[in-house]
Amino acid sequence: MKLEAQWIAGFVDGEGCFHVGIAKHDEMTMGVQVLPEFTVVQHERDAQLLHALKAYFGCGVVRRNHGDRLAYRVRDRKCLREVILPFFMKHQLKTTKNIEFLKFRRVILAMEDGMHLTQEGLEEIKRIAEGMNRGRPR
Amino acid sequence: MKLEAQWIAGFVDGEGCFHVGIAKHDEMTMGVQVLPEFTVVQHERDAQLLHALKAYFGCGVVRRNHGDRLAYRVRDRKCLREVILPFFMKHQLKTTKNIEFLKFRRVILAMEDGMHLTQEGLEEIKRIAEGMNRGRPR
Repeated sequence: MKLEAQWIAGFVDGEGCFHVGIAKHDEMTMGVQVLPEFTVVQHERDAQLLHALKAYFGCGVVRRNHGDRLAYRVRDRKCLREVILPFFMKHQLKTTKNIEFLKFRRVILAMEDGMHLTQEGLEEIKRIAEGMNRGRPR
Repeated sequence: MKLEAQWIAGFVDGEGCFHVGIAKHDEMTMGVQVLPEFTVVQHERDAQLLHALKAYFGCGVVRRNHGDRLAYRVRDRKCLREVILPFFMKHQLKTTKNIEFLKFRRVILAMEDGMHLTQEGLEEIKRIAEGMNRGRPR
């Protein structure tokens, strides 16, 4: 299945999710792990499509999400930074999900600068993460 | 806001709905009204996008759906036949929603032939409509 960039942008505008998880993790420097992830969840009947996304981006994984749902998921920072961010900078989302994407991008760029390794930087990342997906009950 | 065809196809693959309503209607020849409709529902924060879809297709309406949701909706048969069907024949959906679209198209073409005005034709349309969106709890 061949996907075009604009089709992907449209599909992600509808179905994609940019999320920054923040979880306690004793082994991390700050006792907290910051976990940005990009996901697209679909019913398993459209598994082929998720694999086509994976092939298009050349990274990420397809995993069972819950029940009959599968997810294409990217957590790898190099893939997020070098593939996912540039893609959605070039092929801009048209819904207000673009605001979430831009916050997601800010978190990843802040992590590149090591901000998640200082208390002050971590607080800022938490503030951005808390403001994401608010009021998006999807 | 300028939309590209492939973006629309991707977005509709995620967010669009092809539905055939069948309702009792005493004033209709068969006592039943067959109502195909194409809709895209979004949170009101993305109203601009629904208006961009309306502008792109040059027909349909943007209406409040329920609560804070708006819908771009096409019920007009001429618009469905001359604009919506050709668009999605040219820019094919990539998810299994394409199967729903093809059934939707069969119903509209059957209506062009007046099939909804005969008992036998109406039964066939009902069968197609009942088989649509089954198992798509969206």
